[in-house]
Amino acid sequence: MFFSRETYTERRAQLRQLVGTGLIVLPGNNDSPMNYPANGYKFRQDSSFRYFFGLVREGLVGVIDCDSGEEWLVGDDIDIDDIIWYGTVDSVAGMAAAIGCTGGRPMKDLAVMVGDALAKGREVHVLPPYRYDTKIMLADLLGTHPLQVKASRKLIDAVVALRSVKSLEEIREIEAACAIGYMMHTTAMGLCRPGITEQYVAGVIGGIASGYGCITSFPSIVTQHGEVMHGYPSDQPLEEGRLFLVDAGAETNSNYCSDHTRTSPVGGKFTQRQREIHDIVADCHDLAMQKAAPGVKYLDVHLDVCRLMTERLKELGLMRGDTEEAVRAGAHALFLPHGLGHMMGMDVHDMEGLGQTFVGYDDETRPSTQFGLASLRMGRRLQKGFVVTDEPGIYFIPALIDKWRAEGTCAQFLNFDKIETYKDFGGIRIEDDILITADGCRTLGEETIPYRAADVEEFIRQQQDAE
Amino acid sequence: MFFSRETYTERRAQLRQLVGTGLIVLPGNNDSPMNYPANGYKFRQDSSFRYFFGLVREGLVGVIDCDSGEEWLVGDDIDIDDIIWYGTVDSVAGMAAAIGCTGGRPMKDLAVMVGDALAKGREVHVLPPYRYDTKIMLADLLGTHPLQVKASRKLIDAVVALRSVKSLEEIREIEAACAIGYMMHTTAMGLCRPGITEQYVAGVIGGIASGYGCITSFPSIVTQHGEVMHGYPSDQPLEEGRLFLVDAGAETNSNYCSDHTRTSPVGGKFTQRQREIHDIVADCHDLAMQKAAPGVKYLDVHLDVCRLMTERLKELGLMRGDTEEAVRAGAHALFLPHGLGHMMGMDVHDMEGLGQTFVGYDDETRPSTQFGLASLRMGRRLQKGFVVTDEPGIYFIPALIDKWRAEGTCAQFLNFDKIETYKDFGGIRIEDDILITADGCRTLGEETIPYRAADVEEFIRQQQDAE
Repeated sequence: MFFSRETYTERRAQLRQLVGTGLIVLPGNNDSPMNYPANGYKFRQDSSFRYFFGLVREGLVGVIDCDSGEEWLVGDDIDIDDIIWYGTVDSVAGMAAAIGCTGGRPMKDLAVMVGDALAKGREVHVLPPYRYDTKIMLADLLGTHPLQVKASRKLIDAVVALRSVKSLEEIREIEAACAIGYMMHTTAMGLCRPGITEQYVAGVIGGIASGYGCITSFPSIVTQHGEVMHGYPSDQPLEEGRLFLVDAGAETNSNYCSDHTRTSPVGGKFTQRQREIHDIVADCHDLAMQKAAPGVKYLDVHLDVCRLMTERLKELGLMRGDTEEAVRAGAHALFLPHGLGHMMGMDVHDMEGLGQTFVGYDDETRPSTQFGLASLRMGRRLQKGFVVTDEPGIYFIPALIDKWRAEGTCAQFLNFDKIETYKDFGGIRIEDDILITADGCRTLGEETIPYRAADVEEFIRQQQDAE
Repeated sequence: MFFSRETYTERRAQLRQLVGTGLIVLPGNNDSPMNYPANGYKFRQDSSFRYFFGLVREGLVGVIDCDSGEEWLVGDDIDIDDIIWYGTVDSVAGMAAAIGCTGGRPMKDLAVMVGDALAKGREVHVLPPYRYDTKIMLADLLGTHPLQVKASRKLIDAVVALRSVKSLEEIREIEAACAIGYMMHTTAMGLCRPGITEQYVAGVIGGIASGYGCITSFPSIVTQHGEVMHGYPSDQPLEEGRLFLVDAGAETNSNYCSDHTRTSPVGGKFTQRQREIHDIVADCHDLAMQKAAPGVKYLDVHLDVCRLMTERLKELGLMRGDTEEAVRAGAHALFLPHGLGHMMGMDVHDMEGLGQTFVGYDDETRPSTQFGLASLRMGRRLQKGFVVTDEPGIYFIPALIDKWRAEGTCAQFLNFDKIETYKDFGGIRIEDDILITADGCRTLGEETIPYRAADVEEFIRQQQDAE
């Protein structure tokens, strides 16, 4: 439990109201086996379970009856063996009282409660399960195959409506995650020198998160190959003159995340060519900040960024032709194959497991199937209280360049001869977390991790001087 | 791949021979979702898959036909989208060739291969699955419920026979893990001072493992409450005068583990009472080293340790009566509710997922149901090349003391009045990894992490002087 009983009680009341009728079954997470049943990964509660029930113990299920208003915490009490191995914990009834539920019930009651509801022809609402143990449990409850559990659109929409708009206390938690993210990123920047391995940097910044009892909000991307979108750290040492991309965030004990990316020059100085591309990405990042505001579609902000990027890549001779036509054709996606950003909150891609199109799109704004634009996770109109990432990037992906050149894709907008000379460039991304405010937006996190090329160089110089 | 093609080829040949007939299906692991499908925990390959097939990519299954001798690597090749997100990887056929398999086949062939074998009445051998996605896959292949997949005893026995005896190259990897474990533990010892939080120490030592591209071999136990067997780190600061128990290990990129425990005094000096108990545990640790040798049952080593512990606890007035009778009654288990040790290798509790009784017991040595002894994971005769842990401990568990006192359990051997005065003591454990040699055993790891009370105090003094 992190927020007050009133907070959780109020959230569940809103959920009941939005869903209207039927039985809501919200399973919490269990321990996730790594290499044998008893050796689990670090426990991570399900975000929606935690949002509505607040508890972080494994083996719990929340059941909300929209019609009777009853709210049950389902789970089994522990015995003396558990106490020896895991210490004393609260009873299920005690936890239920602490979060304002009607009461606690043992796990064997779950099948009875769901069975009764189904027998009476009532709707049983579940979210799309993503853990396979949960899939099996829900399949058994609902009488289907584990990979065919049908989620309730009504429940998804209700949860998305509630979790999308962050309260002040939620924003405070995201700011706390950003403060740890600041330490992770500035530490990585200080370590960005020849001979240090990617893994070492990833280990140090992961240790910073763990040292606060946190986890990283996703597996840190720490790589000299920024052109590989999810480039996990290798044992390769950093090389003078390359770019070092770090995309990493912290997740607090309250399960709120940060997510930032910075790209630094190994050795401390960008080359001319690196700086030109870095400046474009930084300007795209700033443009998004200028445009993002309540009522604006994030899809339009994304397209504005694509236009600016195309203009600037034309100036460098990498693109050509009419900017508007090039963006319409998706030519810029050779360099930016992903979207400008995503929702962020308790999940670093907030609520992605509920279905990206339900989170980032709506009846008015529909997802695209075009390469690049199809990867934009957040397109719909922004609202005050939304937290999204602003993360433009420019990458030179040899396999993609070869493919497009061979196929002639967008050839009228792309100067492949010049692009060829960038095949060893790598990639640059700059990412911040932004809060949509009443009249615009602001970055989250008290301190800004340096991101302008000159500021990055200056920061590295200061760090190395300080030693 | 870590060892040579010949190593993997030879291991599979031995496996075929031991199993004799039928089709062996060995699924590798997939990414394990943390809080939504695309946000996974760090990938960890299945140990048995890696032992026989060597590969660390997700989405692979090994199929060995014992009758035809064919060995297939089953998996799907990646496409351009995967290359953008994850970089270029080897083809399935290429990987199959690299490890000496007959060839690669796409995932859709798996159901055909298994279906054909079942239709012909052939045995299909699988190990007990522990990941829920694997349970679902095997259930679909074998036509059963995911929680009712029946493992092949013949395959379990064959895998246990092969993986139990470590080769020289495997021991070298365990030694490498121990070297990282040494750094983790000595760092923790140096940090053992008032005001530092358990989480901070856990974060720092986890960062050391990650910095080598490793993981911790299990979630580190870093706690002032050593009496809670799996006491995970809290945000509580260390307090002067308490005991600080750290049970942690590293797992190398080759998936070989270390597992050590040390208990240090916060502030640097054991109290008289702490030192008395610590000395008993250290002497029990040493006794096990003297006794462990090929042909000796580890159950007997455990019981020898229990006898010594009982003798010494009698001297302190905590136990009483005849030592032999007390140990037979399990009275010492109030203080030592777990076993002396477990197999260690690619899993920190090696092969535990295959069934503890198949790994640690055999027809000659059967597991006990007595409290305490029932938790001994390794009882059977030791063989040259086995790696086991030597980890005696003494704990004062308030809930267990209350229960036994109320029930009068082993009352004739326990001085509950005196035991009551130790309820705030906590717990002490000392753990090393030992290799059974031709004529005895030796600890693994080039350097010994200090464990004798005087050495621990001296080490802490030196660390703090050095600052």
